[in-house]
Amino acid sequence: MAQEIGYYDGRWGRPDELMVPLEDRGFLFGEGVYEVMHCINHVFWLLEEHLDRLEYSLREMEMQMPMPRAELVNVLREGIARVDAACHTVYLQVTRGAAPRTHDYIAVQDRSVLMMVIRPWHDDTEEWLERGGAAVTFPDIRWQRCDIKTLNLIPNAMATTAAKRAGAQGAIFVRDGIVTEGASQTACIAKDGVLYTRPLSHQVLPSITRQYLLQHAAEWGIPVREEEISLEQLLAADEVMLFSTSRCPLAVVSVDGKQIGNGKVGPMARQIWTHHQADVLRICGPVKKA
Amino acid sequence: MAQEIGYYDGRWGRPDELMVPLEDRGFLFGEGVYEVMHCINHVFWLLEEHLDRLEYSLREMEMQMPMPRAELVNVLREGIARVDAACHTVYLQVTRGAAPRTHDYIAVQDRSVLMMVIRPWHDDTEEWLERGGAAVTFPDIRWQRCDIKTLNLIPNAMATTAAKRAGAQGAIFVRDGIVTEGASQTACIAKDGVLYTRPLSHQVLPSITRQYLLQHAAEWGIPVREEEISLEQLLAADEVMLFSTSRCPLAVVSVDGKQIGNGKVGPMARQIWTHHQADVLRICGPVKKA
Repeated sequence: MAQEIGYYDGRWGRPDELMVPLEDRGFLFGEGVYEVMHCINHVFWLLEEHLDRLEYSLREMEMQMPMPRAELVNVLREGIARVDAACHTVYLQVTRGAAPRTHDYIAVQDRSVLMMVIRPWHDDTEEWLERGGAAVTFPDIRWQRCDIKTLNLIPNAMATTAAKRAGAQGAIFVRDGIVTEGASQTACIAKDGVLYTRPLSHQVLPSITRQYLLQHAAEWGIPVREEEISLEQLLAADEVMLFSTSRCPLAVVSVDGKQIGNGKVGPMARQIWTHHQADVLRICGPVKKA
Repeated sequence: MAQEIGYYDGRWGRPDELMVPLEDRGFLFGEGVYEVMHCINHVFWLLEEHLDRLEYSLREMEMQMPMPRAELVNVLREGIARVDAACHTVYLQVTRGAAPRTHDYIAVQDRSVLMMVIRPWHDDTEEWLERGGAAVTFPDIRWQRCDIKTLNLIPNAMATTAAKRAGAQGAIFVRDGIVTEGASQTACIAKDGVLYTRPLSHQVLPSITRQYLLQHAAEWGIPVREEEISLEQLLAADEVMLFSTSRCPLAVVSVDGKQIGNGKVGPMARQIWTHHQADVLRICGPVKKA
């Protein structure tokens, strides 16, 4: 059993030892797509939803699945079995593989190479619900197809770096005064008991966690509105929440140093977390404490 | 002597055999910058200008030069000496190297890894001046920092693929009805004897060839205006030219299937090529025919 494992095009190895071809188009053009998933007690959380989105990203990039979905799940399970942990995080990436560098991808349009890194995962959402998180805003300078989950992530890296330097846990992209999304999360607010999330478009990733919230909010008794959120509305919200596969949610109690609501983690964040935990328990069973 | 050579972080090898770490941030985030240069009779064409731009790209990315400039030139010369050719093309890329995947680059902000691929180069500009080239337009969906020559090149790959499928040699990005630039060239037009090039901004790459044209146009007797070019102006131009390090220029005689000017390669394209060739001859000497 390994402490962590990497995979590229059929080969397994330590993530810090595995090598990939210099001419992989991921390395030359950032040309590829990815997903991050969690596996709790060997049960994947929202697996089909993640694989649906992977197929969407691939289709929009004119790329192929590296193998049929059932076979891909087998490779995922093999990776999970190799890493000694109760909970795992899976990073999965697909590129077109190696070819002499030309901008166009005509010569390799039918090719597709799978890469993965699997590590133990510890869900720290509850710890952050105790403390409350901080976020900074960052100009949304990204391209116009953020609905595709691609490797062209320089602006996301810039925004997240700005957040960390400010001691914050999240960066929130703002374009023309409107909140688009977090650098690696979907951004929602609570105001007067209503959960607000912006409509999907080419400017935001179709977040799996957002989809999960929209499916379940009614049964949890949380009214939801899909509306654009301005920066002013964000700062005047009762609660700001950043949702991702890793934290559902990160409750944000300050943005750019300005206090949100009463500066404490709010009831809707706790309510969503409680329901989410109940779902995880029901589907994956009780998680062993480390 | 090799037919082509690759380099990564101190190691030389065949480009199709060299391997790079799976966790290089170039592979995970497309995080890195690059240059493409030519070397004619072992003399680099506009070397300092390319290295100035490399340093600009690195600075804007908060990255470092992988080594002092003089040392980098020595590595470049070593690569040239290894490949059996009179003329070489050098692809040079800098990333932050490998690190466990986190969006922020704080842990690796001082690191920098050089990669190169060097191949024989044949300048085919003259052949295309005989035939005339074709271009297609493509929506400029790129990010707002195209002044940095980064590896986040998915939209460029998409545009170039669309061009090739249409039998064209170039793709011209258009944003809000205004020509920004080619997918890997700068786009200029000639109208009534004047060369038009758009002003620099965060939306276009500071093209080395454009800079060369601006420096020399007056001595060649070509009036230049730095003005935005609309798609209408492009289609109504006497000549459309795509300038790059590889072709100076590609004379475009049709855009999206519509004839430009009289549908033939125009006098300004030929005039610029003649002056450019004279400069190359003066600086690099006569190129041996293959």
